[in-house]
Amino acid sequence: MSFLRNAWYMAAWDREIDKNPVPKRILGEPIVMYRTGSGVAVALHDRCPHKAVPLHAGRIEGDLIQCAYHGLRFDSRGVCRHNPHIKGSPDTLCVRAYPLAKRHGALWIWMGEPERANVNAIPDYGWFDVDGPYAVTQGYTYVDGGFGIMMDNLLDLSHAEYLHPNTVGTPGSSGSLQTSVVAGDDYVTVKRKVFDLPPSVVFRPHWSRSERIDQVSDMTWRPGTNLLLDIRLRAAGDDSGNGELHFPSAHILTPETERTTHYFWAVARNFKQEDEGLTLAINEAFQQTFTGEDKPIIEAIQRQFDIEGNDVPVANFTIGDGGGVRAKRMLAKLIADEQLVRS
Amino acid sequence: MSFLRNAWYMAAWDREIDKNPVPKRILGEPIVMYRTGSGVAVALHDRCPHKAVPLHAGRIEGDLIQCAYHGLRFDSRGVCRHNPHIKGSPDTLCVRAYPLAKRHGALWIWMGEPERANVNAIPDYGWFDVDGPYAVTQGYTYVDGGFGIMMDNLLDLSHAEYLHPNTVGTPGSSGSLQTSVVAGDDYVTVKRKVFDLPPSVVFRPHWSRSERIDQVSDMTWRPGTNLLLDIRLRAAGDDSGNGELHFPSAHILTPETERTTHYFWAVARNFKQEDEGLTLAINEAFQQTFTGEDKPIIEAIQRQFDIEGNDVPVANFTIGDGGGVRAKRMLAKLIADEQLVRS
Amino acid sequence: MSFLRNAWYMAAWDREIDKNPVPKRILGEPIVMYRTGSGVAVALHDRCPHKAVPLHAGRIEGDLIQCAYHGLRFDSRGVCRHNPHIKGSPDTLCVRAYPLAKRHGALWIWMGEPERANVNAIPDYGWFDVDGPYAVTQGYTYVDGGFGIMMDNLLDLSHAEYLHPNTVGTPGSSGSLQTSVVAGDDYVTVKRKVFDLPPSVVFRPHWSRSERIDQVSDMTWRPGTNLLLDIRLRAAGDDSGNGELHFPSAHILTPETERTTHYFWAVARNFKQEDEGLTLAINEAFQQTFTGEDKPIIEAIQRQFDIEGNDVPVANFTIGDGGGVRAKRMLAKLIADEQLVRS
Repeated sequence: MSFLRNAWYMAAWDREIDKNPVPKRILGEPIVMYRTGSGVAVALHDRCPHKAVPLHAGRIEGDLIQCAYHGLRFDSRGVCRHNPHIKGSPDTLCVRAYPLAKRHGALWIWMGEPERANVNAIPDYGWFDVDGPYAVTQGYTYVDGGFGIMMDNLLDLSHAEYLHPNTVGTPGSSGSLQTSVVAGDDYVTVKRKVFDLPPSVVFRPHWSRSERIDQVSDMTWRPGTNLLLDIRLRAAGDDSGNGELHFPSAHILTPETERTTHYFWAVARNFKQEDEGLTLAINEAFQQTFTGEDKPIIEAIQRQFDIEGNDVPVANFTIGDGGGVRAKRMLAKLIADEQLVRS
Repeated sequence: MSFLRNAWYMAAWDREIDKNPVPKRILGEPIVMYRTGSGVAVALHDRCPHKAVPLHAGRIEGDLIQCAYHGLRFDSRGVCRHNPHIKGSPDTLCVRAYPLAKRHGALWIWMGEPERANVNAIPDYGWFDVDGPYAVTQGYTYVDGGFGIMMDNLLDLSHAEYLHPNTVGTPGSSGSLQTSVVAGDDYVTVKRKVFDLPPSVVFRPHWSRSERIDQVSDMTWRPGTNLLLDIRLRAAGDDSGNGELHFPSAHILTPETERTTHYFWAVARNFKQEDEGLTLAINEAFQQTFTGEDKPIIEAIQRQFDIEGNDVPVANFTIGDGGGVRAKRMLAKLIADEQLVRS
Repeated sequence: MSFLRNAWYMAAWDREIDKNPVPKRILGEPIVMYRTGSGVAVALHDRCPHKAVPLHAGRIEGDLIQCAYHGLRFDSRGVCRHNPHIKGSPDTLCVRAYPLAKRHGALWIWMGEPERANVNAIPDYGWFDVDGPYAVTQGYTYVDGGFGIMMDNLLDLSHAEYLHPNTVGTPGSSGSLQTSVVAGDDYVTVKRKVFDLPPSVVFRPHWSRSERIDQVSDMTWRPGTNLLLDIRLRAAGDDSGNGELHFPSAHILTPETERTTHYFWAVARNFKQEDEGLTLAINEAFQQTFTGEDKPIIEAIQRQFDIEGNDVPVANFTIGDGGGVRAKRMLAKLIADEQLVRS
């Protein structure tokens, strides 16, 4: 599986990028990001078109980035604006610029045909707006494993009971579960509801309304590889929505290469929004969950694929398999269609 | 050269395996070994058939191994006995189980067709039985070099005089030597006898019968890559066998990959069996010999092969070359025959 | 681009080689160098023809090198002179010997057809003779980048103003510059002169004749990959040559592999020859320039080539590009001609 190019990928948290050039590989390509003197975040191919030096080795001069090797300077559209070694206009020399948009506290990059980049197609992560009504905490986990393995991980939450019993998993949930898959033209949602169980470890301190709860967990994937988990906690048997805890989380995958992934995540909540200690504790719990528990398993799977190939059966061995299978098939079809058009 | 599959390979010393799953690659395949609650040592393909997670990341539950990711449990024959996510029998899901047999203090694995696994075909290493009449010490050396290089090493002991002058080598032996090669359907033995020399450094403290000795050193290879060295020390000129030191050593090679090898070794003796200090000293001397002296040379040869190929002449440049050449040819033929049958 | 084989490459500084065998890869081949008891420097293929052990793991016995594994000994022409394991003459066994010549304080190796090795074809680095009239300091920088990138670096000194402003670069030079390329059958020279500027940081302490200077910098490449930079500092406007500082430097590239390079360098001067503190300071300044400033850029370019290929445009985007383009084309033609003859 290669990459879907005509899609928005998260390139960085907005707060990551300042006037120091930041290198990052995305869909295998070296990208440099920086912020101009005017405050605009820019993404360019991280390779000077003259001698292939990574532009991130250079520095920002006003609104231009200057190559460390021979001093050529490029603007935010990638056009050379300064070449001290020639007479005449330098602007026939260009480096590729990538559309980059800020939304929901993140910077989104478009790796495909620039004319098709439409910021309205950036997936809605409104719950995670840093100045919105919810409390939000952001994180990042580097994963030495491919995005397909991570899609399987996120779209089948039945693993939480086994891999995350001390954080987000709900022991006993496999025995008290409704699950279904809903799909449209551009999404797959795995709807999951567990009934009449004690809350998981992370929710226990924040729930006093009842001893037992129902928990709705809807995970939605949208192309390229952007996922959102909508969790709602309710008193067991109470479907009114009154007093429910709303605890959505963003799970945004950006392929670094075919076998490595930038995993951006954020967690929002509709309760105790002012409690910064709680925000920090939630960040730490999810850091432990994703970096300490999911990442080693995903990387172990990737190493297995490296050794023996990735020919894993797609049959529904667990109830939750269906969503991942369906989303990966939809993504594979989108990629095939895109490559057909291009060839 | 690939691998001979229908053969017994040593997988571990018996004492290595307890209820914590142990991963090990053998003939390139990831294997997990563990001991069930009933005490049976088990070898399975180290890859859950559901999502390819290495089973060694999980834990033992009674006689079953439980996958860390979704909680599936497999028995010692590799059959799924527990899948909490489905209704109905889980036993259509299987992981490959490998025949594993305990003999001579070691666990032996059969990587080929299971129906051909016959424990009577495990090579006889009776001198190394931990409860036998000899004193025995076991060791292990990981070698970043292929088994073919190691077969050459072991079947041509003429290197000992040069590479091991301070341990097992007998300086001057190339000048006072009889050597011959004997081969049968399933073995090659290099018979080597040095005459009328002082004993080597490791034997000197244990020999007081005469100033000069004769030393018989018969190295036998059996397929796949199991070797045994039968050393007997005698007073020079005395072929009666009376009062001889018998000092057999096991040299059991298990390919990890085509270019890396598990080297299991053991040393037994028929003298001072109760002297545990001596047992320890012998272990340290052989650790030094194999890990400190042979391993760097073998790994240097492997690096040369990596750079320039392994097209080494097979002509008998030293007297001892013949045994290694013959054993490698016999092994190559066995592999070719096996692959012919399979295709 | 592969390698030009019929050419002299610098293998080591003469002072590097003593009676301990030194391994080095040159044009991808493992070479061992040592000095015999008679003081002759020798270069052999670093692979015993018996079992492929690197000869550098052995030791020197008189004028012979002895393999660590089975004790075979080879002379400086690569002929086996001692094989303790056979009767009769050992000299049918040979290892390849490479012509090796001492000149200008360096050892030069000929990797091509031995009969074409002519020491008179070693490029003239007479200014760097250690017993000549100039003060000389030698250095070495290992570069994880290919020789083609380094040829571009050295043949286009317009980078110095940007990459080396605090050492050898002359700020403002791109605005006050004459440059031209002169080429013959076996060389390319980039002639460069900057006018009426303050001296660069490294020259400032040694120049008191005038506030502003003219600087001539002629860089010459000769096949395989041997470069020489002839720098002369003059009072601005004074072309008489009287009182000029002469500051030649040797830039000798020896490919280790296609993508890594041994960079031998030396700096000579016609002033304050006795000042050893100055010699040391110059060595440190150039170590900083080459190892601290050029090497990271060259290695960053190599990593870009590893990721995205080396299809860098050859158009003259900077004035200085022409020399590198021309030398690389000439070298490519020499290589193609050589391979044509061989095939």
